[in-house]
Amino acid sequence: AGASAATPSRRLDLRGIYPPLATPFTSQGEVDYSRLEENLRLYSGIPFRGFVVQGSNGEFPYLTQQERLEVVRRVRQAMPKDKLLLAGTGCESTRGTIEMTAQMADKGADAALVVTPCYFRGSMTSAALIHHYKQVAEASPIPVILYSVPANTNLELPTDVVLSLAQHPNIVGIKDSGGNITRIGLLVHKTQHEDFQVLAGSAGFLLASYIVGAAGGICALANVLGSPVCQLEQLCCAGSWDEARALQHRLIEPNIAVTSKFGVPGLKQAMEWFGLNGGFCRSPLLPLSEAQVRELRQDFTSNGWL
Amino acid sequence: AGASAATPSRRLDLRGIYPPLATPFTSQGEVDYSRLEENLRLYSGIPFRGFVVQGSNGEFPYLTQQERLEVVRRVRQAMPKDKLLLAGTGCESTRGTIEMTAQMADKGADAALVVTPCYFRGSMTSAALIHHYKQVAEASPIPVILYSVPANTNLELPTDVVLSLAQHPNIVGIKDSGGNITRIGLLVHKTQHEDFQVLAGSAGFLLASYIVGAAGGICALANVLGSPVCQLEQLCCAGSWDEARALQHRLIEPNIAVTSKFGVPGLKQAMEWFGLNGGFCRSPLLPLSEAQVRELRQDFTSNGWL
Amino acid sequence: AGASAATPSRRLDLRGIYPPLATPFTSQGEVDYSRLEENLRLYSGIPFRGFVVQGSNGEFPYLTQQERLEVVRRVRQAMPKDKLLLAGTGCESTRGTIEMTAQMADKGADAALVVTPCYFRGSMTSAALIHHYKQVAEASPIPVILYSVPANTNLELPTDVVLSLAQHPNIVGIKDSGGNITRIGLLVHKTQHEDFQVLAGSAGFLLASYIVGAAGGICALANVLGSPVCQLEQLCCAGSWDEARALQHRLIEPNIAVTSKFGVPGLKQAMEWFGLNGGFCRSPLLPLSEAQVRELRQDFTSNGWL
Amino acid sequence: AGASAATPSRRLDLRGIYPPLATPFTSQGEVDYSRLEENLRLYSGIPFRGFVVQGSNGEFPYLTQQERLEVVRRVRQAMPKDKLLLAGTGCESTRGTIEMTAQMADKGADAALVVTPCYFRGSMTSAALIHHYKQVAEASPIPVILYSVPANTNLELPTDVVLSLAQHPNIVGIKDSGGNITRIGLLVHKTQHEDFQVLAGSAGFLLASYIVGAAGGICALANVLGSPVCQLEQLCCAGSWDEARALQHRLIEPNIAVTSKFGVPGLKQAMEWFGLNGGFCRSPLLPLSEAQVRELRQDFTSNGWL
Repeated sequence: AGASAATPSRRLDLRGIYPPLATPFTSQGEVDYSRLEENLRLYSGIPFRGFVVQGSNGEFPYLTQQERLEVVRRVRQAMPKDKLLLAGTGCESTRGTIEMTAQMADKGADAALVVTPCYFRGSMTSAALIHHYKQVAEASPIPVILYSVPANTNLELPTDVVLSLAQHPNIVGIKDSGGNITRIGLLVHKTQHEDFQVLAGSAGFLLASYIVGAAGGICALANVLGSPVCQLEQLCCAGSWDEARALQHRLIEPNIAVTSKFGVPGLKQAMEWFGLNGGFCRSPLLPLSEAQVRELRQDFTSNGWL
Repeated sequence: AGASAATPSRRLDLRGIYPPLATPFTSQGEVDYSRLEENLRLYSGIPFRGFVVQGSNGEFPYLTQQERLEVVRRVRQAMPKDKLLLAGTGCESTRGTIEMTAQMADKGADAALVVTPCYFRGSMTSAALIHHYKQVAEASPIPVILYSVPANTNLELPTDVVLSLAQHPNIVGIKDSGGNITRIGLLVHKTQHEDFQVLAGSAGFLLASYIVGAAGGICALANVLGSPVCQLEQLCCAGSWDEARALQHRLIEPNIAVTSKFGVPGLKQAMEWFGLNGGFCRSPLLPLSEAQVRELRQDFTSNGWL
Repeated sequence: AGASAATPSRRLDLRGIYPPLATPFTSQGEVDYSRLEENLRLYSGIPFRGFVVQGSNGEFPYLTQQERLEVVRRVRQAMPKDKLLLAGTGCESTRGTIEMTAQMADKGADAALVVTPCYFRGSMTSAALIHHYKQVAEASPIPVILYSVPANTNLELPTDVVLSLAQHPNIVGIKDSGGNITRIGLLVHKTQHEDFQVLAGSAGFLLASYIVGAAGGICALANVLGSPVCQLEQLCCAGSWDEARALQHRLIEPNIAVTSKFGVPGLKQAMEWFGLNGGFCRSPLLPLSEAQVRELRQDFTSNGWL
Repeated sequence: AGASAATPSRRLDLRGIYPPLATPFTSQGEVDYSRLEENLRLYSGIPFRGFVVQGSNGEFPYLTQQERLEVVRRVRQAMPKDKLLLAGTGCESTRGTIEMTAQMADKGADAALVVTPCYFRGSMTSAALIHHYKQVAEASPIPVILYSVPANTNLELPTDVVLSLAQHPNIVGIKDSGGNITRIGLLVHKTQHEDFQVLAGSAGFLLASYIVGAAGGICALANVLGSPVCQLEQLCCAGSWDEARALQHRLIEPNIAVTSKFGVPGLKQAMEWFGLNGGFCRSPLLPLSEAQVRELRQDFTSNGWL
């Protein structure tokens, strides 16, 4: 993402909020494309910058290659043309990722969100990760966004690797879901002269990410509380920090509930309460128990959302 | 694996040593089936109980679904009929694993080695894991072997989950690569009345596993030093413990070198020194540096293997 | 810290910045009290809210009980009366902590900073931690501040434990060095009606902590760059967020350098460059190598501090 | 521990079993020396090689310096002269450890068991650890035994550090509580020409440790089931491996119960059932709940010990 000046012209302006779309399944475990499309209609009034498909919340590791592509195609058709579609194209192998990226670009993705390969984490040295991402970036017809999500991969893309990759002209940003705000600030600071943007990977640290210079957020909670999350963005952009703080505070517990505490099943359950189509998860993800549903609901009601 | 008596008749006698076959790739990254088949010919004089395909060392996360099946088919054809073929059929989703298991059984696998799903590790509760494995075991036309490899998955299949699953008639064993010998002893102890066998997942703790009652081992090092690993098995079975100890000691450093220290690239490099076809790795695995090759070689020479 | 209203009257107003004082040792390993006192004179022009003695950076685990008390006594005498002295009184046992707290109060400490006990971490359940802190708080003649520093203790004081303890009238705050900004925001949110204040435990996330509502910071880097850290506080309090961001950015690398990267030896080395008395560390802490000193210096020069 | 030949003459023959003595406290939290002494009388018929005081199970971090010395003095007087007394002398600082070692030697300790310092774990590099142990070994009037217990310290003494230190003439062994049997085998193998002995740090992997060449064990469970643990040792030394396996199997669950599952409170509770004086723990260790007591008991009864 090599750029020239203090105010770089961004190749792709990523600023804003994106829900990493959940993938509704039928009770039989099939992808429920019509409900997915209906969600996009329901989101039409919310000022999202765009949508992410096949982030972790899309259950991408549970989709076949064909399903992964079909989801991209359907979402692209159902969403407004002026919004961005960021598609999770990461596979464990470099060649698999390159192929998936090309195919998703063909289906209309505006950028590729590439999760760190992780199965052989003992071998995923900085050199290996740099080699992987450079190969992908060079082959990709669309810009590449790095994706670091240690809660799932047990691997945080090292800071020096990110800074090295930020110089590549086809690598334009990172989704950082690790939540280490010191690191997020450092990434912003050290890439200020690059065409590189940092997106917060969760609504729990969205305000903090904005204050240290992030460009936006890809937030699971935006599937459920899209308007409030976008409102938080707008308060930050407007410099209304006191209101932003009050709103951020009310979003933390719901956010924890649909991410680390109850995961994708919690996210999908909460979507249903707000008139959205969460649908079923694929196994081995289990539906929440009744006690978990109660606790989940409590995390929304006690903060005034239900 | 419910059985009736102190000396259960095993549905499938797993006792013995298995190399988890490496998958040689060409310099262009294609599966090199002819070299894979040649390795099987080179192994023909070694008293292996059978072969594992698509354990971690087979780089299975880097293979397409088609390649995964073709590897099973080729290995089955190239290997002796009386040896066992254990095929890694694990996918992240239950439905994917069920389908892969059926297809690999169709290609001639004798048993399915099913790695723990792990991407959503925060949701992989004991209940979720039990549900996953039971679904797979019930659908599978061949016996199922559990596979716990926390170095790669960051998830150890909990002991109580293993003990619960051991009672299922179509779950016949576990490959435990975690190396916690207390746990391995406990698994043997608590499943002594079940049709369930414990296989050590690495040559580093093979002697220790035998002394606490394991049935055999699936050992990366057996790709390289197949005869010595089988000799260690025979010494253990013959009760020649002093000789076994001396041999085990000489295998520890080479084993660490081809597993935790240098991973699959180290394994494949070492194979070449012993006249076997390691071949290339797929990216993002990188070839060893010269300094690493020297250190790897030293781990073999200092123990008298080269 | 039970309080009654939306704008509680704080029993002890903790707002502001505190350096966790380093303890200079002579080359012979004796506490160098005169240099410690000289540091306090050198700090006299900096608008610190007070000082912490025997936080981690004071090498408290390397001091005898007598030395711990003498350091408190000397610092109390050398510092202005209107500033706060927070003293690290934590020991592994409850009874030891109670005794140390009483003695340090006697030497003039205004509040006790109590690190989590951690040696038997497997037994440090929420119940055990609550019991420990309540016993200490009830026995203590001075207010108690919780201290969670997982990088050293491998134990993060659980959020629900903090929230439970926040209700105790003699527990008035927490120093959170874990740096999880989502949690810091949640702690502020859930204790807003309590007499309880949250202090950031490091300068790396000071801006982010202020934006989510923290009351101040106890920052190793304030030993070295006391004025800039206080300036960051003032910019935050004044709502000059853009200037605050620019300053925060320049502090991240120096902060990492004197904490996670080079630890107390790095902190003490950097102090020397700024005319302060770092002095020697006690063994087993080793002085930095020449290469490390160069890298440390680079982290300051590249951000314009040297 | 530099030695010359294949059958070195050991400076101190450590072979055998040692209970790491629990420290009984009164209900008021005072050290109950008389009950401690009574335990030694109760152990008099068990063929222990000696006793450990102030291993982790002695709650040493909860004792004052004076108490630590008094426990050593009392145990030395109460135990037979021909048995070995290994005393935990480790402190966080090198100077503290050196002083404690000298004083405990003066009270009659035969060897010093020195736990890894760990509070500043980020700074506990191999160089720092080697420097620490060499300083201690050079100053110590009695032989030094390394003590690696990562469950408590979150720091495993690295293998290369152990191998380096094994060459020191006053470092004669290691208590390894990590339980990595591959590493234990490697330590035995690589120190076979040194005056260095490896002791298993837990009864759960005692059989496995013997088969790979360990010299003995320091086992919490020996406080409770001293005779069976010694019997396991004797079966191993006699080469009665089948009997040894059967006995080892029955010890695993009780061992887990008094270590990782229920910790020192579990150990002390179990001691009471066998007529020994467990006594109270010091806070913050809490007594077991009734449900925990039932589960603990079940772990003994289901294996035929109660």
